[in-house]
Amino acid sequence: MKSPSELSRVAFYTPATGATTTHGIHVFHCPDTVGIVAKLSECIASRGGNIHCVDVFVPDNKPVFYSRSVFLFDPARWPKDALEKDFQNLAKFFNAKKSVVRVPDLDPKYKIAVLASKQDHCLVDLLYRWQEGRLPVDISCVISNHNRASNTHVIRFLERHGIPYYYLPTTLGNKHEEEILNLVEDTDFLVLARYMQILSGRFLEAYGKDVINIHHGLLPSFKGGHPSKQAYDAGVKLIGATTHFVTEELDGGPIIEQMVESVSHRDTLESFVQKSENLEKQCLARAIKSYCELRVLHYESNKTVVF
Amino acid sequence: MKSPSELSRVAFYTPATGATTTHGIHVFHCPDTVGIVAKLSECIASRGGNIHCVDVFVPDNKPVFYSRSVFLFDPARWPKDALEKDFQNLAKFFNAKKSVVRVPDLDPKYKIAVLASKQDHCLVDLLYRWQEGRLPVDISCVISNHNRASNTHVIRFLERHGIPYYYLPTTLGNKHEEEILNLVEDTDFLVLARYMQILSGRFLEAYGKDVINIHHGLLPSFKGGHPSKQAYDAGVKLIGATTHFVTEELDGGPIIEQMVESVSHRDTLESFVQKSENLEKQCLARAIKSYCELRVLHYESNKTVVF
Amino acid sequence: MKSPSELSRVAFYTPATGATTTHGIHVFHCPDTVGIVAKLSECIASRGGNIHCVDVFVPDNKPVFYSRSVFLFDPARWPKDALEKDFQNLAKFFNAKKSVVRVPDLDPKYKIAVLASKQDHCLVDLLYRWQEGRLPVDISCVISNHNRASNTHVIRFLERHGIPYYYLPTTLGNKHEEEILNLVEDTDFLVLARYMQILSGRFLEAYGKDVINIHHGLLPSFKGGHPSKQAYDAGVKLIGATTHFVTEELDGGPIIEQMVESVSHRDTLESFVQKSENLEKQCLARAIKSYCELRVLHYESNKTVVF
Amino acid sequence: MKSPSELSRVAFYTPATGATTTHGIHVFHCPDTVGIVAKLSECIASRGGNIHCVDVFVPDNKPVFYSRSVFLFDPARWPKDALEKDFQNLAKFFNAKKSVVRVPDLDPKYKIAVLASKQDHCLVDLLYRWQEGRLPVDISCVISNHNRASNTHVIRFLERHGIPYYYLPTTLGNKHEEEILNLVEDTDFLVLARYMQILSGRFLEAYGKDVINIHHGLLPSFKGGHPSKQAYDAGVKLIGATTHFVTEELDGGPIIEQMVESVSHRDTLESFVQKSENLEKQCLARAIKSYCELRVLHYESNKTVVF
Repeated sequence: MKSPSELSRVAFYTPATGATTTHGIHVFHCPDTVGIVAKLSECIASRGGNIHCVDVFVPDNKPVFYSRSVFLFDPARWPKDALEKDFQNLAKFFNAKKSVVRVPDLDPKYKIAVLASKQDHCLVDLLYRWQEGRLPVDISCVISNHNRASNTHVIRFLERHGIPYYYLPTTLGNKHEEEILNLVEDTDFLVLARYMQILSGRFLEAYGKDVINIHHGLLPSFKGGHPSKQAYDAGVKLIGATTHFVTEELDGGPIIEQMVESVSHRDTLESFVQKSENLEKQCLARAIKSYCELRVLHYESNKTVVF
Repeated sequence: MKSPSELSRVAFYTPATGATTTHGIHVFHCPDTVGIVAKLSECIASRGGNIHCVDVFVPDNKPVFYSRSVFLFDPARWPKDALEKDFQNLAKFFNAKKSVVRVPDLDPKYKIAVLASKQDHCLVDLLYRWQEGRLPVDISCVISNHNRASNTHVIRFLERHGIPYYYLPTTLGNKHEEEILNLVEDTDFLVLARYMQILSGRFLEAYGKDVINIHHGLLPSFKGGHPSKQAYDAGVKLIGATTHFVTEELDGGPIIEQMVESVSHRDTLESFVQKSENLEKQCLARAIKSYCELRVLHYESNKTVVF
Repeated sequence: MKSPSELSRVAFYTPATGATTTHGIHVFHCPDTVGIVAKLSECIASRGGNIHCVDVFVPDNKPVFYSRSVFLFDPARWPKDALEKDFQNLAKFFNAKKSVVRVPDLDPKYKIAVLASKQDHCLVDLLYRWQEGRLPVDISCVISNHNRASNTHVIRFLERHGIPYYYLPTTLGNKHEEEILNLVEDTDFLVLARYMQILSGRFLEAYGKDVINIHHGLLPSFKGGHPSKQAYDAGVKLIGATTHFVTEELDGGPIIEQMVESVSHRDTLESFVQKSENLEKQCLARAIKSYCELRVLHYESNKTVVF
Repeated sequence: MKSPSELSRVAFYTPATGATTTHGIHVFHCPDTVGIVAKLSECIASRGGNIHCVDVFVPDNKPVFYSRSVFLFDPARWPKDALEKDFQNLAKFFNAKKSVVRVPDLDPKYKIAVLASKQDHCLVDLLYRWQEGRLPVDISCVISNHNRASNTHVIRFLERHGIPYYYLPTTLGNKHEEEILNLVEDTDFLVLARYMQILSGRFLEAYGKDVINIHHGLLPSFKGGHPSKQAYDAGVKLIGATTHFVTEELDGGPIIEQMVESVSHRDTLESFVQKSENLEKQCLARAIKSYCELRVLHYESNKTVVF
């Protein structure tokens, strides 16, 4: 290690000073080895980037590395293509399984499609947050297997904001997965907002990107249908909601976020459902926000790191 | 209904004024019908009892009645045998499935036995609370299937307080259920404080009274062994503890109390266990306190009312 | 106390059997004495009313009585005027400070006015719950001191549902309290949904009924303006919201409900505000629902009983 | 930024492989500038250290830098004196206000003194955790201004573990601050476990190191004495406990940790106190554990960063 005098002789990093200073987010996942943070941060600093936030995680029992860095930089000095190239080089060097850099203020917003069924409390809540600017996404379309009258609040809202709404009446024999794939193929990820159809493994593989689901139960308890009724019948004193990535295994994908609320003998099935709906809205919104901020990373086969 | 003038002509209840005023707790469970609260409260009032607290619960969908009343009364005026007779009469009248009256300051404390294994955090916590006067029970004995050295904190504590300690080394072939039954037959209920043996249906039937267990998982998730590891492997973001009545079905009995805490990718199996232990202590202690205050009633086949 | 045989000889209460069976809620607050529960429940039973829920509370240190009873009855057998008369008689008999009976399915809904300012997240949340049938009130009008464009979501919603909206631009010199009084005089209670004007003691006295406010801070911390900033500057690790009755003392009235959420050094003032808004919506909605169900009673000078 | 081929030509960091691999924790606080993470991590990597965890925080509105890094290294390769020198050089280079490196498995444990008064639930809880190996400190002594009989559980425990216990009966005129200073001068920090005396500014300055206090109220509400009673009289629905650094301002120092629990009209002053005690134990223990893990840093004049 260099002494202070030696340090001062090093051509020191010059900070970003441009008027177009903005922040970038970089997430990285690779086999662990010595020097990853050093090289990532040296790359950023050499371009005048000022790191404001770093989260690094290496599990005790496994030589894998996860990081999320947020840095301030001047795109005039470190343009998009150079930014991406630099991180690609690092990704190659470290054999990274994942290396993503995003500049929220410059990059296009994440494009999502939202799938819903009859219960639309989660959909409505997402739309309200989106309208408030709290959900930094573009909503490509809303797909529903429940038929809504055209004068309902949701339909009106979507019309007013120019968001296409598609009614695809699923049946036992037809899940309309082809149509859905066509409608969503240019999205960055999917949100199942109490969408009550199971997407097949074929769909998931064809879509190829992340699908986030809100399950109205505290997984791994109460998988499948009517989790509120399952919970009610089980006599639990806490009910919950779970946001998770969708895999072929029903309600089995990696968990992102969970929330609970108390119930007692005084709760009816109806109040179980109402309390659950309140949790579902918050749980789904939080998970989506975290995901958009690149805080959510797949970890092992069925877990997540949520920075 | 009588008019105010008529009411005043009625010989009105005279309050308890004796120096020995104390409080009684009555719990009642019977098929629902009109007039139960009227008769229970009229009985109490006719004896000068002053009701301070009543909880009544009749589920929407089932004609069953549960109540818990706390009343101030003068034992000089309403002695124990009359108190019990009066409530017995009401119990017969309403075909009650359960009618219990307790006078905490006069009746003997509940007598319990505590069963433990190697992990003694719950046992130690109960003993400390008991010593502080926060656990209104008499501890008849502590039974363990783990061999503790005689100079450990727990053994010393039990010796100092004159609480017998029995080491019964269970094996696959011998659960010592006969010995345990003998040791605990005069107790009012049993507490399994992380006792890692399954009590057989035969034991439960022979014992015949309530057995309360702390399960270090959020039931119905993670039944059985190593729930912390099950939770860790499942990638949950919330872990919990559950206190429940023991039935023949492993970890399946009616739930009394549940508590949760957050976990994240940063938690190791060790911290899962530590967080769980913190929850278990609180969850078990709360359930036992509620039980001693007659707040916990069996409800349907697998639930509880906890007033 | 009568023996079972004596009990059976009593002309026993006959249950309500009419097809128009509905439920009534009665709350009662009077000086404590022996026999109140007996007389209340005997009154209900004598009319065939079946008590489904009772909460009684008499504080340890003060001879005051609070109860809330829910009972099923047949209005054909116990009509409105008799119902009210019977409870009035009991109220006179016991010198009750409060005796209210409501039959939610038959009585007119509570009529409320909602006052809001610029931040409308609470208003929007209430309107959505109201539309969903979760807020059992009639919204007489919405009054705002913030000027909203006519094409905003809120204004459209109110128009569509025929709810009058009044913009009263308050200034230092003019709070428009006279106009507000006129607009709200026929309401049952007022809801201040982040209404940023202080109602004067004169207004409160003239209005004479309950006013419920949501304060975006965990009282008694952070009274007054910008509680999120106050909390942010104070370096707290928990922020909260408080619903309370409004008195002349700013943010000093009896607390009804409080909720908290964690914050850390990573939270900015903006995220403090967002987390607070999420709490405010839930906290206000819960308090209003409890209030409509007659669960909230004034207790001592500055507290509440919330059954 | 170098291309992959250039990167591979760089003499790459060689990992620590010694059998004595252990982990080190480094915390750093300095004026923000570009390149701090780069230099810190490069230093660690150049010595074969493998970073397992990094937390970096730079507030949006202030150019100050905080980091906490955990790295695996081989003391045979990077001995203590070199370790400290290297970080000192970096501290000088960046004008750090704080730079601390600890090697928990090799360095002496933190030495603390615990001050208590009559209520000893926090003291007992800390002693139990310490005995369980959950509190990685050496307890230099326990000082109390409450006179305990020699056969109490606490005194026995301290005797058995060879921890000196000093009874210093404080009066209005004499806080024994000189004696306390002498007894604690070689400690690393102090823990006030419900110590009911206010330490003077002179004491704090003379001691010069951190003093951690548990306040049995949710600051900034209910400063000073009897916060449970203050909360009870205020009619709150949530009570809490706060751990904070002690400053001259009574209960005003930077907050480290806060926890809450619900209360209702049914709670008496006694149950307020009991619930509070349960919170105090957990809140204090968590804060001390975080502090020992170097997670707690002073931030601005009255806040903390808690990684």
